[in-house]
Amino acid sequence: MKYLHTMVRVSDLDASIDFYCNKLGLVELRRRENKAGRFTLVFLAAPGDEDAQVELTYNWDPEILSGGRNFGHLAYAVDDLYGLCQRLRSQGVTINRPPRDGHMAFIRSPDGISIELLQKGEALPVEEPWASMPNEGTW
Amino acid sequence: MKYLHTMVRVSDLDASIDFYCNKLGLVELRRRENKAGRFTLVFLAAPGDEDAQVELTYNWDPEILSGGRNFGHLAYAVDDLYGLCQRLRSQGVTINRPPRDGHMAFIRSPDGISIELLQKGEALPVEEPWASMPNEGTW
Repeated sequence: MKYLHTMVRVSDLDASIDFYCNKLGLVELRRRENKAGRFTLVFLAAPGDEDAQVELTYNWDPEILSGGRNFGHLAYAVDDLYGLCQRLRSQGVTINRPPRDGHMAFIRSPDGISIELLQKGEALPVEEPWASMPNEGTW
Repeated sequence: MKYLHTMVRVSDLDASIDFYCNKLGLVELRRRENKAGRFTLVFLAAPGDEDAQVELTYNWDPEILSGGRNFGHLAYAVDDLYGLCQRLRSQGVTINRPPRDGHMAFIRSPDGISIELLQKGEALPVEEPWASMPNEGTW
């Protein structure tokens, strides 16, 4: 038995690829368009960690993608939490829970999927501007 | 960058451990009770695949765990799809999407988390009772 992926639905495929790949740093592994079913599947993973994937399902016919409370978040370990959060901010991504402790941050995808970012290994030294940055919204 | 886990909230920890471990076949890796925060975290994974985890969050104060449309499902590859589905049925788990094609089935956790089960490698030969078993509910 082996974990394959977590599937999330996306309402705008371009915006989602921009978020998950250009901003968060995942890479696209493969893509399948199904014209009869009117959907596109895109499989993503962290570079070098291709065994644990996220599957984006884009249904061509729009629907409201509300969030629910039974799903929590996706979590990734990252090499440089401050560097990633700085880049995400510069790309317009809200850091809902800034890494005040040098250890943990939360952001959200365009469709509200909560993503936890954890510093690999030991926490980074506490430093500004993160240390005094307030939370924004929920995650 | 590395995938760590998908977190799902659970409303009944015992029922969830029974479902995810005793029925689905994941194993418990570690557990952390936080009395101050009034929550328990339990990390699970498929045996031998401990790098890709599911985190169960059990908040001691009850809340309604509704589902949402932005989250889709967790997916696992399994060695014997028919055998697993037969065992799950005998344990009272509804096979929402039976493996009619010998390739894919869907079930739901007690809190409505959709779980996709995919036969490893080639699909199994189509056979009864699965081939003519109708869908039940949604997944």
